[in-house]
Amino acid sequence: VTSTVLHLAMAGGREFDAIRELLAIWGDVAVGIGDDAAVLVPPTDASLVVSTDACIEHVHFRSDWLTPYEIGGRAATAALSDLAAMGARAQSVLVSLTVPQDWRARLGEVARGIGDVVRMAGGRIVGGNISRSQTFGITLTAIGAAVQPVSRRGAQPGDMVFVTGVLGGPGAALDAFTRGHTPADWLRTRFASPVPRLAEGEWLAARGVTAMIDISDGLHADVAHLARASDVEVVLDATRIPCGLSLTPAEALASGEEYELLGTAPAGVASALGEAFAREFALPLTWIGAVEARTGAAPVRITGIAAERDARVEIAGGHDHFTG
Amino acid sequence: VTSTVLHLAMAGGREFDAIRELLAIWGDVAVGIGDDAAVLVPPTDASLVVSTDACIEHVHFRSDWLTPYEIGGRAATAALSDLAAMGARAQSVLVSLTVPQDWRARLGEVARGIGDVVRMAGGRIVGGNISRSQTFGITLTAIGAAVQPVSRRGAQPGDMVFVTGVLGGPGAALDAFTRGHTPADWLRTRFASPVPRLAEGEWLAARGVTAMIDISDGLHADVAHLARASDVEVVLDATRIPCGLSLTPAEALASGEEYELLGTAPAGVASALGEAFAREFALPLTWIGAVEARTGAAPVRITGIAAERDARVEIAGGHDHFTG
Repeated sequence: VTSTVLHLAMAGGREFDAIRELLAIWGDVAVGIGDDAAVLVPPTDASLVVSTDACIEHVHFRSDWLTPYEIGGRAATAALSDLAAMGARAQSVLVSLTVPQDWRARLGEVARGIGDVVRMAGGRIVGGNISRSQTFGITLTAIGAAVQPVSRRGAQPGDMVFVTGVLGGPGAALDAFTRGHTPADWLRTRFASPVPRLAEGEWLAARGVTAMIDISDGLHADVAHLARASDVEVVLDATRIPCGLSLTPAEALASGEEYELLGTAPAGVASALGEAFAREFALPLTWIGAVEARTGAAPVRITGIAAERDARVEIAGGHDHFTG
Repeated sequence: VTSTVLHLAMAGGREFDAIRELLAIWGDVAVGIGDDAAVLVPPTDASLVVSTDACIEHVHFRSDWLTPYEIGGRAATAALSDLAAMGARAQSVLVSLTVPQDWRARLGEVARGIGDVVRMAGGRIVGGNISRSQTFGITLTAIGAAVQPVSRRGAQPGDMVFVTGVLGGPGAALDAFTRGHTPADWLRTRFASPVPRLAEGEWLAARGVTAMIDISDGLHADVAHLARASDVEVVLDATRIPCGLSLTPAEALASGEEYELLGTAPAGVASALGEAFAREFALPLTWIGAVEARTGAAPVRITGIAAERDARVEIAGGHDHFTG
């Protein structure tokens, strides 16, 4: 998917000025702007993978907790993480911004945050759209290529369940912000500057992973998505969940916007896969559970946790973008 | 680009309910929802063409002028029209909706409008995103395939300039609404239910058209976009502009959101092309100007119009999504 021509849909004077400013900031991470649509060379040896994701002020972020640069970067990570979960390489990103007057001066920093994450992911910005609005929002469409796309539907009884990274940081940071506290540095970094696990996802897809999803809603909720989609049940061992320093499994289960990868693989390959992954990426891959045949009980059972109800309560209060 | 798997990024209970409602409405125009990203089979004999477009309440539409069904349909037309301008066939659409509480009950009709236009265009909805927001907005990403993509940069001195359809309706309807009047039926239809010229664009791309753009900002503004992108000057003969009944060339020049196609072709093929087009599509294709070498004057000169200044004044007040 090499971009040859591309476009920012636009109209009128000041919008052109904003686009020129963004293009100057993006430099060579944006290519060829100017047409009604971007023309891409399709991959010849891979499937196309596409996803769209919106980050809306007051719903997905608050500008008193994050810098404009971080807000842009997180939006790009959220969109690219969907490609990572499919085992896809990032190729092209389309950027749609809705901008109230009081965000106009911060737009450059938002764009810089988007551009840096897209660049680090090896992608290019190939088009977009800027519009006035009463609400600041970033809607990104990510286009990638996957030789072996991994769905969330392939988990089989007998598989083991893994998760990358160390969990709980974003949830704990959010909790601190909500209480009016300042989160510890590593919590804030995990919340403000998450990284899409693209190389990791592609690597895992090439090594027999049966199902994969990224952790955006929280480990508990996303294990449930994967289990329901695969029509299986998952038993998680809470004592094995890789929790950040001083955080509990309950906190790790409820913490959303982690953008770590959660997946399943046949038990026979688990041990070798985990060791090879940790060597390759200097990032832990931890086996936290097992896939069982569906019995009709809940899609996720959690063992080894005294305060399981605490986790459920936090999850119930978690990510519901339609609940006011 | 046949969709095999796809996704609506989402989180939480009521959002799932909204997605289920939309999927029921879309029926077979939406396919395979459920993964982090949609997996598409890339075209083997064509380029990929992608574009994103946002329609925001109070910026791009007012809900007292249009029904929710029309608002959805217009958003889909605006996005698909960008593919038409490239000479591409529509394949896949990603739908991102930002929904305030008071729009929740109207969401189904908006979705129906989007779905009907996507279906008529021969496309499929392959994914999307729903989020709460203080502002209602529809951001659509359209993915298509073009055997011969047409940019807006290919116009050559000696080419003739054509436009499809009959112009002025949307602008006149907008003018009536703004003055508190009820527009005549045909004006309202052109404003509320425009059609993306996809088959027309693909047909023209296969027949030697040198540059093309859709009319979203207004004929005058979009001719200027094409002329600047091609580094040429265009001389328009206002007496040849196909104006709607009782409308003036000045009105036709300023009327935006037409979603007709504007383009250029070598003078030698013009006459035959226009006749064949009109036979094929029962839609006029009119030659309205000529392409000349760049002299450094304005990119567009208009002859045959007494009230050229009127057109300019209206254009100056036209589509600037960052002004006001």
